[in-house]
Amino acid sequence: MSFELTKPLLDSLRGDVAEGRDSAIQAVLGELHPADVAAMIDRLGLDEAVYVYRLLESETAAEVLIELDEDLREELLNSLTSREIAEDVLEHIDSDDAADVMADLSEDKQREVIALLDDQEQREDIQELLTYAEGTAGALMAKELISVRTDWSVARAIVDMRRQAQKVEHVYTIYVVDKDDRLFGILPLKDLLFNAESTRTLIKHICQTDAVSVTTDTEVDEVVNRMKKYDVVVLPVVDENDVLVGRITFDDVMDVMTEEAEEDYQLASGISEDVDATDSPIVQVRARLPWLLIGLAGGVISSRIIAQYEGQLRIDPAMAFFMPLIAATAGNVGVQSSAIVVQGLASGSMEGVNLLARMWKELRVALITAFVCGSVIFAINFALEQSQALSYTVSIALFTVILTAAMFGTVIPLLLDRMKVDPALATGPFVTTLNDIFGLLTYFTVGHLLYDLLP
Amino acid sequence: MSFELTKPLLDSLRGDVAEGRDSAIQAVLGELHPADVAAMIDRLGLDEAVYVYRLLESETAAEVLIELDEDLREELLNSLTSREIAEDVLEHIDSDDAADVMADLSEDKQREVIALLDDQEQREDIQELLTYAEGTAGALMAKELISVRTDWSVARAIVDMRRQAQKVEHVYTIYVVDKDDRLFGILPLKDLLFNAESTRTLIKHICQTDAVSVTTDTEVDEVVNRMKKYDVVVLPVVDENDVLVGRITFDDVMDVMTEEAEEDYQLASGISEDVDATDSPIVQVRARLPWLLIGLAGGVISSRIIAQYEGQLRIDPAMAFFMPLIAATAGNVGVQSSAIVVQGLASGSMEGVNLLARMWKELRVALITAFVCGSVIFAINFALEQSQALSYTVSIALFTVILTAAMFGTVIPLLLDRMKVDPALATGPFVTTLNDIFGLLTYFTVGHLLYDLLP
Repeated sequence: MSFELTKPLLDSLRGDVAEGRDSAIQAVLGELHPADVAAMIDRLGLDEAVYVYRLLESETAAEVLIELDEDLREELLNSLTSREIAEDVLEHIDSDDAADVMADLSEDKQREVIALLDDQEQREDIQELLTYAEGTAGALMAKELISVRTDWSVARAIVDMRRQAQKVEHVYTIYVVDKDDRLFGILPLKDLLFNAESTRTLIKHICQTDAVSVTTDTEVDEVVNRMKKYDVVVLPVVDENDVLVGRITFDDVMDVMTEEAEEDYQLASGISEDVDATDSPIVQVRARLPWLLIGLAGGVISSRIIAQYEGQLRIDPAMAFFMPLIAATAGNVGVQSSAIVVQGLASGSMEGVNLLARMWKELRVALITAFVCGSVIFAINFALEQSQALSYTVSIALFTVILTAAMFGTVIPLLLDRMKVDPALATGPFVTTLNDIFGLLTYFTVGHLLYDLLP
Repeated sequence: MSFELTKPLLDSLRGDVAEGRDSAIQAVLGELHPADVAAMIDRLGLDEAVYVYRLLESETAAEVLIELDEDLREELLNSLTSREIAEDVLEHIDSDDAADVMADLSEDKQREVIALLDDQEQREDIQELLTYAEGTAGALMAKELISVRTDWSVARAIVDMRRQAQKVEHVYTIYVVDKDDRLFGILPLKDLLFNAESTRTLIKHICQTDAVSVTTDTEVDEVVNRMKKYDVVVLPVVDENDVLVGRITFDDVMDVMTEEAEEDYQLASGISEDVDATDSPIVQVRARLPWLLIGLAGGVISSRIIAQYEGQLRIDPAMAFFMPLIAATAGNVGVQSSAIVVQGLASGSMEGVNLLARMWKELRVALITAFVCGSVIFAINFALEQSQALSYTVSIALFTVILTAAMFGTVIPLLLDRMKVDPALATGPFVTTLNDIFGLLTYFTVGHLLYDLLP
């Protein structure tokens, strides 16, 4: 199976929609995986998307819906009645996806949909999942899992598993619980299939008891780290009493990883909302303009600082030549230092490292870089036959600015992290702007002092 | 199971190493998951790490080794003899990890180790894996898998699977091949366990035939995308004749995702090698200094450009005030535009979108932002009672610079991508520096023209 989304394919689908060739659309999309159908619908306008969506069989439609781009999904859901959502969508998807769909609805519509669900267990599952705070294991988990009791025999367990398996599409492991439903261990399918045991053996004697688990309030970052670290395909989730309440599968964790990487990258690039190349210009402007305005404010502050030193610029207009160099280097160093801290925090490699130790290490890096950069620029200015005062000013200011930018860059993300703000913010325009301002201030202060001393 | 790496724990381990309390070390580490042992060893110096490593049982040691930080692993491997690597390490790990270990060794040592492997199949597997180019599915896959033939009965298949299962630690799905070993379909363990079929049924009648697969030369980006898109826990890998040659599991793909996200983030932050907070200052300087020197070169070029306009600065020194604002905004806009393209390329949401369409969309975003920013700064300059010439110069230059930076930011990553260079490079200091220079050039050109026209 291999599918490539091409422009001709999209154009032909659009043509079919415009001409109302329903059976052609159904024939084309019927061949595809729901994820590929979703990728195509993502490219259509809302009206076209709704039209195509309504042509899909309800089981496929539900799977397509949960794969759609979030914005489009929300709009599409608004075009469905509560009954359609309850009977055609929620019937066919897992509880975690169902909770995601519900979260897109208004509270009134949520109540209506819930009331229309026939299956009481499903109703309770969805309601429970909606109670967990976003960003926790509880909000990410699904209720569908297969569990057996420690005191069951293999034979009894297999009978019960068959029954349970009808509700669980993908089974990776069987969970073992005690009589109070507390997680006791796991039983990988492989062990059950290939380790020939007597069917009278008790489950507790053959299961693995060192299962990695998380609690409903574990943060998703920790969920990701634990799954990656221990290479487990599905994590059991327990409540505060150790009772097994759900499971988180690798695919949901991969989605979280992608979202988090995108978020960090966007924060570092000065984009504040989750936007995509396919979003409308207005949405993109909304995500980007605030950062540009912060940068602009920084620029205005810089202009005021420089204005204070207008006298200095009249003494030597050549001082203006090196302002961009100072500001840019301050920004670059600050971003580098922050990036190393941000990644260290994300990967956990900074666990058990204290602030001062981190700063001392960064200071050593900064001292070497500052010395090299200061010397290089001094040599260049010597070659360019700049005045002694200007050459010393530029090199000394550059040296100082690299050290301070490195310290800012190290401290700010650590502080943000302690304040429970995403430290990736520190690699974005906000901190670059701060470093720009501070760099120029340093430059003119040094210049002001040195021009009195040197020829 | 829950483990937290703390400073007291590390200090106590260091103390045990210093005093040679071997049994204490073994007692502490024996309780831990290999991944946690690796995380602790990662924090030790090389000598301490080697000491601790040699205290581990060989099976645990092998698992710890593959979890170690790459630099440390390479150094640690250098301290092991070829026989130790062949018998203590490679014996206990999967073929994909074995190939990774081999790749760390010199060619001579590789040959020695290979010659010491008793198991011919293992030898061939490792040699085969070493032939695939880095960054392809072939280099990522493991040879360990369970496959059955289309024309086997369920009963015969189960007997054979049990034999094969001894070599495969984690089994997620069974692969079904035809008589020429070509991939025919898959048989999830769940189906085998719970869908009660007659044991005489032929495998081809019960397996799923729409398996998502990749070929050995599929790029890892595509492997990641396909696993995420289709939510499959393990991807079969086939050669050019469709013959099943290996499988890629979710945990390896998660590692790739993490590496790629880190790489993009580092490129965007001006860090050229894969460095970590734990790397030595010298390693960090090596990764960071080149970018700072590029920025410095850009700064020198900027200084030459401004020097050309020294006459202009003498006419109005206040023009210098707004240089940082222009340069910073150019940089910010360029990074935003590039980031959106880089993410679109990574997520596949830009498939089937052509260059001109992308530029037109970005131009609309840029026009709105440029208009807002230009107006805001005009109002500020009016309030600050700047001269008419300066106010118009700053606003017009800012407007122009936002448009050009957005276009640069869009085109450059797309060009890099076509040249098979990582487009994330475009969000780093290199392009920011270019935008700085171009921004200042625009500013002074506009100023030069307007000061002749306006009071």
